[in-house]
Amino acid sequence: MSLLLALAAVAASPVSAKPAAALSPGEVVAASPAPDWQAISPDDLLVMDLAPASNGRPRRVVIQLMPEPFSQGWVGNVRKLAAAHWWDGLTVYRVQDNWVSQWGDADGEDKAKAKLLPAGIEQVPQERYVVRPEGPERSATHEELDTWLATIEGTHAAWHALARKGSKVKDSDPYADETFFYRGWPVAASQAGPSAWPVHCYGSIGVARDMPPDTGTGAELYVAIGHAPRQLDRNLAVVGRVIEGMQFMSSLPRGPAPMGVYADPAERTPIVSVRPASEVADLPVYEFLSTESASFRSYAEASANHREPFYVQPAGGVDICNLKVPVRRRK
Amino acid sequence: MSLLLALAAVAASPVSAKPAAALSPGEVVAASPAPDWQAISPDDLLVMDLAPASNGRPRRVVIQLMPEPFSQGWVGNVRKLAAAHWWDGLTVYRVQDNWVSQWGDADGEDKAKAKLLPAGIEQVPQERYVVRPEGPERSATHEELDTWLATIEGTHAAWHALARKGSKVKDSDPYADETFFYRGWPVAASQAGPSAWPVHCYGSIGVARDMPPDTGTGAELYVAIGHAPRQLDRNLAVVGRVIEGMQFMSSLPRGPAPMGVYADPAERTPIVSVRPASEVADLPVYEFLSTESASFRSYAEASANHREPFYVQPAGGVDICNLKVPVRRRK
Repeated sequence: MSLLLALAAVAASPVSAKPAAALSPGEVVAASPAPDWQAISPDDLLVMDLAPASNGRPRRVVIQLMPEPFSQGWVGNVRKLAAAHWWDGLTVYRVQDNWVSQWGDADGEDKAKAKLLPAGIEQVPQERYVVRPEGPERSATHEELDTWLATIEGTHAAWHALARKGSKVKDSDPYADETFFYRGWPVAASQAGPSAWPVHCYGSIGVARDMPPDTGTGAELYVAIGHAPRQLDRNLAVVGRVIEGMQFMSSLPRGPAPMGVYADPAERTPIVSVRPASEVADLPVYEFLSTESASFRSYAEASANHREPFYVQPAGGVDICNLKVPVRRRK
Repeated sequence: MSLLLALAAVAASPVSAKPAAALSPGEVVAASPAPDWQAISPDDLLVMDLAPASNGRPRRVVIQLMPEPFSQGWVGNVRKLAAAHWWDGLTVYRVQDNWVSQWGDADGEDKAKAKLLPAGIEQVPQERYVVRPEGPERSATHEELDTWLATIEGTHAAWHALARKGSKVKDSDPYADETFFYRGWPVAASQAGPSAWPVHCYGSIGVARDMPPDTGTGAELYVAIGHAPRQLDRNLAVVGRVIEGMQFMSSLPRGPAPMGVYADPAERTPIVSVRPASEVADLPVYEFLSTESASFRSYAEASANHREPFYVQPAGGVDICNLKVPVRRRK
């Protein structure tokens, strides 16, 4: 068997005896000290159990919700919907290749109109697709943007600092003026506004909507299952990401009707339940590699400049969605 | 049903009566005149038939091979392997989420060592992962790079010209100094060398290898099934892409063993046959939207600056792997 080495994968690899400069990203992650890992609060986790696969195996999908200040109106709705067991008995009703898997009520809109949504669901204005400083819109300088971003949380993330400090990591992004990591999440920012927003990467979960743009409640969600659909940034709300079980969302049969809808409702994948983690017994503790840690900085550099023997030509850069934040079960 | 509109998808949409400025990328493609489409020669197509799905449905995957001057040693090997029916009866033996599906002989290396590969298989040196002008390596200016790239084929592609001519489309790329389309294929280039190479996008097919880097024959191939693994550019040979049936490669169950290998060989997906198109009856004619056409330029602009009503905030840019070259059956 000739193996295309999956060195970019986050899967833990044994730490080798090679010099530090030749560690793969996975090796950097495996070697990172425990204090560089940050536990994810169960308050920020949802557990979605799909019907078992045809071979009887369980299909559990663990979801982490987006932290403040991003997408909070919709995140609040999603919390209420999970607490109300809203999705129980509903389905994954559309899977479009290289795009999204989407779940909720195939007749959700009508149900909402019939006021069947749980109490307290907020209609979130489209302006919330981004976070902005108070005051009128303007065009900020690069330095002003940085100053404002720093106010979001004291000092912001390792990856951003890395890119700005003249490291050899190139993070040019066609969709934004800046990309960085904020408390473990990929975020982008623009000098115009200025504004910042969470980005759509593989595994990101967003709020489906119709027109006008404030019609998404959170009752219908999608997860990106292909190349990062960055054109959706600032147009739909990213509310979370899949941290375990992503393969159960990405390997579903693609729907044959337009937009990946299942022509035959019997082909939809039933959702047994979606629960706040507090209602799920024996859930492990999950942790992510702090994006403010030295280990994450090393991981970013190793991802942008693969020096391990398999690679003959390091890229010298990495895009924000290819720098996947490592998440694992705490041992 | 609340639908996340799949406007970025290439699927033909009815041409609306909206003003031209508000056409979605799909609408631009649907409205493009026939002369802007270029037929794909059957000489450049392979047809892979997987075993039917569990519901009995056929699973046909159509592959287009990379044109000159890129990866030609490996492409030549792949042509010989298909002509020899090398993959018939072999399997897709590894599927790793957000990475690749890989096929060939799970014991391929040994088979090759036993000289069971068809006659004439070339050992391609790693230098061929890129194309370079003759002469010693050097650092070219931007203008020198452009001049050299133009010699590859008279004038090169619309997308590149678009980016360079001050259009509002931003195509910053962290992996290369330039990205452009060459005869319908996404390509990147560096001033260092200078050099140019085909890039790994969703659906790109590459040659798996071991160490050292010249060990890939083409007998084992992978297709990217997640976010574009651009770090593999210049480290593995891209030899083609899936133009139809991609969903059959991307929706396979992920292998549970490390690197997505199926722990139980019975879980592998059997390959019935891989054939040059000349051996396949009743294959349709496939065509792609010429990347030198005015329609492609409009498509690129519409993809980077969504102006249709669904979008509230155009990105102002697009990355080369999100600007999927439209391919369809000729009517």
